[in-house]
Amino acid sequence: MPAPMRFRDDIPSPALLLDLDRFESNVSRMTSHLRERGKAFRPHGKTHKCPEIAKRLVAAGAVGACTARLSEAEVFAGHGIRGLLITTAVVGGAKIDRAVDLAQVAPDTIFCVESERNVRDLSEAAARIPGLEVNLAVDLHFGRTGISPGAPALDLTRFITRQPRVRFVGLQSYDGAAAHTAPFDARRARTSGSMKQAVATRRLIEREGIACPLVSGGSTGTYRIDSEIDGVTEIQPGSFIFMDMEYGQIGGPDNTEYRDFDQALTVVATVISRRPGLAIVDAGYKAFATDRPFAPVPVDLPGAVYAWAGDEHGRIDISNVDRDVKVGDRIEFVPPHCDPTVNLYDQIHALRGNVIEAVWPIAARGKSQ
Amino acid sequence: MPAPMRFRDDIPSPALLLDLDRFESNVSRMTSHLRERGKAFRPHGKTHKCPEIAKRLVAAGAVGACTARLSEAEVFAGHGIRGLLITTAVVGGAKIDRAVDLAQVAPDTIFCVESERNVRDLSEAAARIPGLEVNLAVDLHFGRTGISPGAPALDLTRFITRQPRVRFVGLQSYDGAAAHTAPFDARRARTSGSMKQAVATRRLIEREGIACPLVSGGSTGTYRIDSEIDGVTEIQPGSFIFMDMEYGQIGGPDNTEYRDFDQALTVVATVISRRPGLAIVDAGYKAFATDRPFAPVPVDLPGAVYAWAGDEHGRIDISNVDRDVKVGDRIEFVPPHCDPTVNLYDQIHALRGNVIEAVWPIAARGKSQ
Repeated sequence: MPAPMRFRDDIPSPALLLDLDRFESNVSRMTSHLRERGKAFRPHGKTHKCPEIAKRLVAAGAVGACTARLSEAEVFAGHGIRGLLITTAVVGGAKIDRAVDLAQVAPDTIFCVESERNVRDLSEAAARIPGLEVNLAVDLHFGRTGISPGAPALDLTRFITRQPRVRFVGLQSYDGAAAHTAPFDARRARTSGSMKQAVATRRLIEREGIACPLVSGGSTGTYRIDSEIDGVTEIQPGSFIFMDMEYGQIGGPDNTEYRDFDQALTVVATVISRRPGLAIVDAGYKAFATDRPFAPVPVDLPGAVYAWAGDEHGRIDISNVDRDVKVGDRIEFVPPHCDPTVNLYDQIHALRGNVIEAVWPIAARGKSQ
Repeated sequence: MPAPMRFRDDIPSPALLLDLDRFESNVSRMTSHLRERGKAFRPHGKTHKCPEIAKRLVAAGAVGACTARLSEAEVFAGHGIRGLLITTAVVGGAKIDRAVDLAQVAPDTIFCVESERNVRDLSEAAARIPGLEVNLAVDLHFGRTGISPGAPALDLTRFITRQPRVRFVGLQSYDGAAAHTAPFDARRARTSGSMKQAVATRRLIEREGIACPLVSGGSTGTYRIDSEIDGVTEIQPGSFIFMDMEYGQIGGPDNTEYRDFDQALTVVATVISRRPGLAIVDAGYKAFATDRPFAPVPVDLPGAVYAWAGDEHGRIDISNVDRDVKVGDRIEFVPPHCDPTVNLYDQIHALRGNVIEAVWPIAARGKSQ
């Protein structure tokens, strides 16, 4: 029997580590910022997929949690989290039945829609419950999902109000490309343009006498800008709790570095082989998401450069590293992209300094359905 | 309650599908080929991480299963699979204790080593059991893990034979870069050179009077070539059971396509949004591994081109597709790289035609430790 894990170095690698001090500081900075500006905070759970984290965010003031998918929302609801907003349309008969089951357990869950067919399907399936709350997804230049803002959105809103068992609550207003637009001024221009379209659509709907209490959107990259816009009611950032290399590079105001949040998430690996100038670690494609064009960056090992070396291996060039690196040494890395990296692991090791304070299951890992 | 899943179209997307006829045909082709050439077959479990598949491979004639990691081997052993070979060194005190626990349950497990320190650690930790079987990992031009073949390997072999509780069984001889070398003639040259070095090392060791019953290596790309080499005793291919785009492109003999195995694995996605010329599906970075420089390829939808559109979305250009594509349509894809794609899912849906014959847990998913 292995000894119980108590300290950072007891955790079998590769593993996800969370620095709790930094995590809590990130949460507190975001919540203060939004509270001061009178915006609601519905952080995106697709980043962490971890009910324990969702609960901590609610305790810090979040009105609930966004999820990308129905199956994530089912997991969160099963752990008692309410105020769920599923940011992608739920499509197909079997999933729509599950959506109704979910609304029975968690009646304030908001479902995003973008077509008459989907609205009608939801309304028909909801016969056995009082009804479903729906948010209209508007396409803010991103060209991925959502209906065009303005007149098409108004037409679909009218359609929603005519269906018996769906209740229109507002607009899902996420411009995915704005989140990582750099530098800051370009990001400001992009997200302001997008969010103002969403707000204009809100006003158009309200002029018809239809209440539109919710305009939900924004991201870790744009929350500062979006939260200054009148008519945007809530912000749904995800990555700020962890941060990653991608968000580290987007830049802050006045061409500064982006320092709003601290890097709280790392992946720990172990050196399993050495050869001249190279240390081979036990972390490859199955330890880090590979969707970004940059490799993980070693922490506290200046000069070291990671390169992918297969599913289970990384090759670290240590020819410019000042100290000796031995087999058995543990090296931590900043992941290129946090969300899909977290999705590779079953748990997050929450550390206070070097002490393991908790091990949190990533209960919605793999729940992409 | 959703209806029980019976058919292909009942499976919530995104999901992994396995065509059982093709899978069985792939297994039968590989086992016949190796049986006829007198080579043992120890397929690599890192590909599937699925005990049900490992059992089927053993039933078809495999002597056991390779695993990349200790934690995978623990899962397989817990499901009754024996003849395990862990192809990466187990490093660090806590993991070495677990290795001994594993050998208590599955005494024929083979551990790969490449340093005196690791051999000594294993021998010392094995005090409470009869001993451990160790395979010496040799570095065949790949420059990742393993000791140099020839004299360094012989020296370490002698060291192993002097330790009380480890038993030398042979050579782990995997040249990772050979597997995907294209075209076939270049692959033949590369793997032949590598495997002949392994065999020469075997002969060197045997001339010292040390038995070296095992030379284990090879891959889906090189099994044909490696299995013709005298002195190579067993082949450890992984991907042939599933196949993927990467292996589909390596080419066969005489510059033909690589047709040794059929594409048995697909990912099914659903169209969740439509706009002119584009279908948006519910499968992105969390549904397909992204480590290869090519995107998933739609099956049975000629002209369609997939592009990544985030963690949970893909954007399919359908402007050259002849038929209508509607919201709710299901599209299957060949994954770029099977191993890390399988690692994203909790289960494999095994299909006989359109009927779900079984749902197999990917029990070692995420077990990269």
